[in-house]
Amino acid sequence: MAKTITALATPPGVGGIAVIRISGDDAISIANSCFEGKLSLLDAKSHTIHYGTIQKDNRIFDTVTAAVFCSPNSYTGEDVVEVSCHGGMVVASEIIEVLISLGAVQAEAGEFTKRAFLNGKLDLTQVEAVADIIHSLSVPGCLTAARQLTGEFTARLKGLREKLLDIASLLELELDFSEEDIEFTNRENINLLIKETKDYCNDLADSFKSAEILRSGYFVAIAGYPNSGKSTLFNTLLQRKRAIVSEIPGTTRDYLEEMIYIHGMAIRLTDTAGMRPSENIIEIEGIKLVETVMEQSDLILIINDISISADHSDKLLKSIKTKYTKSKVYLLQNKIDKVEQEIINLMPPVNDNEIRISAKIGIGIDALKEALEKEALQSIDRTKDILVNQRHALLLRQSISELNNALTAIESKLENEIIAIDIRSAAKTLGEITGDTWNEDVLNNIFSRFCIGK
Amino acid sequence: MAKTITALATPPGVGGIAVIRISGDDAISIANSCFEGKLSLLDAKSHTIHYGTIQKDNRIFDTVTAAVFCSPNSYTGEDVVEVSCHGGMVVASEIIEVLISLGAVQAEAGEFTKRAFLNGKLDLTQVEAVADIIHSLSVPGCLTAARQLTGEFTARLKGLREKLLDIASLLELELDFSEEDIEFTNRENINLLIKETKDYCNDLADSFKSAEILRSGYFVAIAGYPNSGKSTLFNTLLQRKRAIVSEIPGTTRDYLEEMIYIHGMAIRLTDTAGMRPSENIIEIEGIKLVETVMEQSDLILIINDISISADHSDKLLKSIKTKYTKSKVYLLQNKIDKVEQEIINLMPPVNDNEIRISAKIGIGIDALKEALEKEALQSIDRTKDILVNQRHALLLRQSISELNNALTAIESKLENEIIAIDIRSAAKTLGEITGDTWNEDVLNNIFSRFCIGK
Repeated sequence: MAKTITALATPPGVGGIAVIRISGDDAISIANSCFEGKLSLLDAKSHTIHYGTIQKDNRIFDTVTAAVFCSPNSYTGEDVVEVSCHGGMVVASEIIEVLISLGAVQAEAGEFTKRAFLNGKLDLTQVEAVADIIHSLSVPGCLTAARQLTGEFTARLKGLREKLLDIASLLELELDFSEEDIEFTNRENINLLIKETKDYCNDLADSFKSAEILRSGYFVAIAGYPNSGKSTLFNTLLQRKRAIVSEIPGTTRDYLEEMIYIHGMAIRLTDTAGMRPSENIIEIEGIKLVETVMEQSDLILIINDISISADHSDKLLKSIKTKYTKSKVYLLQNKIDKVEQEIINLMPPVNDNEIRISAKIGIGIDALKEALEKEALQSIDRTKDILVNQRHALLLRQSISELNNALTAIESKLENEIIAIDIRSAAKTLGEITGDTWNEDVLNNIFSRFCIGK
Repeated sequence: MAKTITALATPPGVGGIAVIRISGDDAISIANSCFEGKLSLLDAKSHTIHYGTIQKDNRIFDTVTAAVFCSPNSYTGEDVVEVSCHGGMVVASEIIEVLISLGAVQAEAGEFTKRAFLNGKLDLTQVEAVADIIHSLSVPGCLTAARQLTGEFTARLKGLREKLLDIASLLELELDFSEEDIEFTNRENINLLIKETKDYCNDLADSFKSAEILRSGYFVAIAGYPNSGKSTLFNTLLQRKRAIVSEIPGTTRDYLEEMIYIHGMAIRLTDTAGMRPSENIIEIEGIKLVETVMEQSDLILIINDISISADHSDKLLKSIKTKYTKSKVYLLQNKIDKVEQEIINLMPPVNDNEIRISAKIGIGIDALKEALEKEALQSIDRTKDILVNQRHALLLRQSISELNNALTAIESKLENEIIAIDIRSAAKTLGEITGDTWNEDVLNNIFSRFCIGK
């Protein structure tokens, strides 16, 4: 019998209410032991809420509501009680201590959701969607995860697997009739079906990068020579935002990184150290850090001080384009306010991926934001309504390789048996994505992303 | 008709779940407009929970549970829906935007509780208890507030008021029979009753300081000459704690302040700048700051370096005792590990309020903690199970003064009418504590302590 677990389900801190979740065979009786209301929780119907106080040894801890969910109709599939108490630092932890003194144990990170998985309430792609919703920093990322939670990814994978298993069955059926030389399936059709499946898996696996952008934001680095106006632009982009500006924790000790939101699309903006124009290709202080930032960037904004000259940063621009081929690069002609209109008129026309701005007085910032949003949206258009993660991508690639084996086997005119084994193997690999087969390592890895109380 | 309001009721941040509260006449219909479940929320019984998704324009925002509370049986007394969605930065704010697009308005700080008060669900002492529970930093403070929330304070005040109103009625009744010279009440008995009430009000008003300690913690300052070991002690007390160590925000820029918990009792520990032994009584760097700290302190720990001499800090000790008469003062003989046992044996015996310690190697720290806990508990033993706040204290003092007027009137053998007016006036003042009478200023002041979503 699994122990009855309890934990704070809401974020710690000051707020209106806090919710304590209790799950397990004894959840209702443990909660009832410290609950004083009109009705005993033992007599409560599933999905009903009861008003009362949490008491122990004649001490009243809080007035609360207790929501009762009877197995199997709960988040975990077990009996669950959710106690809503007042928010704050002390009261919820006191109530949890009371529950523990009555026999509950502190839940581990992700343990409620783990039980939901083990009890068949959620499959692994749904479990991962829960984590993605919680950690998502962007609206599109959150919405995609919400769709995944409703089982969309599961349904698609199921379709693929059924198709593959059908083919395998037909191939095996032929074996039984092999002496009669009956062919149920046209080899070319099989070839086609496998290739279609493979292409689809490839597409999904390729959408991993887009999904990462949905999860963590579109990564934009601001680079340029010293005093080109990088930090001014950084601040201008931050201050103009009506939306949340949040700091990304960790990893950012030596350069500035902030999140900005453009219509719900999360953009991770990084202000790098100034690059010195010198004989070296790029001579940079803290070169390794800046290189890491650049490598991770989806887009690099090179800021040029146009008041010096429009081509002042050409060397830097070229070297960055050569070095970071995976990133988009934009050239921002900054300090346009310092240049006479007549001189501007004489300048060569603006290229694609070039924007004239004044970070200081705000010229061209809207155009820049539009460009950032356009690029960010383009970068996520491969997501296929599913937030493919690294685990999915690895399994997809594995099943592609198994399907390739099948294709080779067909080409080499190998036995049906061998072709069928490869195809079944690919189907099984796809099944691992939803958790039809799993092991503790896979689960531990997934639930390490969870917080306590989920 | 009051607008239907909505807000995040749980603390912002990453957690398992977030709860969005909606309250008002349209709460259920607005929630139902974006809720897809088995049952329409319009048909839901009060105090039931429904599983479904939040959707708008074919976009799924999250799978949620919606709890329905029908007026008047809800926190606010209005129709209320509480939507539990997944935690995280994005999803809850997206759902709130959906609700707002459907006609709800963002709730102001404390607006749910304000409606609860205006609809007669909570009186003002209960409203204040809610704020105290949320902001309480100590377990005893939280428990006291929880008792107050159940209506204990209200009941006591009601008892007092009824007693006073009874006396006033009797005095007024006598007026009707004044020509017949009938005396229903013995003047001495009235005197006694008024004095009893007055004493009780005084006791309550005096418990304000204790209540403040329960709310904000017992304030302990560490003082001493430079290098006496103040910061070592500060760190030792912090590091030894198995319990939470939280920083108090603000006000602490120029000295260190941390919260430690000893058996749930919150102790605000402040490390002050070193005081130089000089001809001046106390020559202190940043003297004003340290003085403020000292004045606020419930207890001052003077640390002496016993390896110099046991009476090395005597001058400081005396000046502090003279200057801060309201604070308890303890002398900590530190660095006891540096002194030979033989020399210790020759020293004068330890006084009360003197503890020999080594902050560095941990000698005597348990004794110190016991002493701190003992003093902290003593300081709160006047709380009378009620968290009297400044507003209460002022009204209690006002009613005491009105009762004094009544006593003077009796003594001066004034008309019953006049005595009765004073007594009724005192009763009315007590009524303001629970909110029988109130004005917008009082409410605004109380609800300014609340967060949005409460």
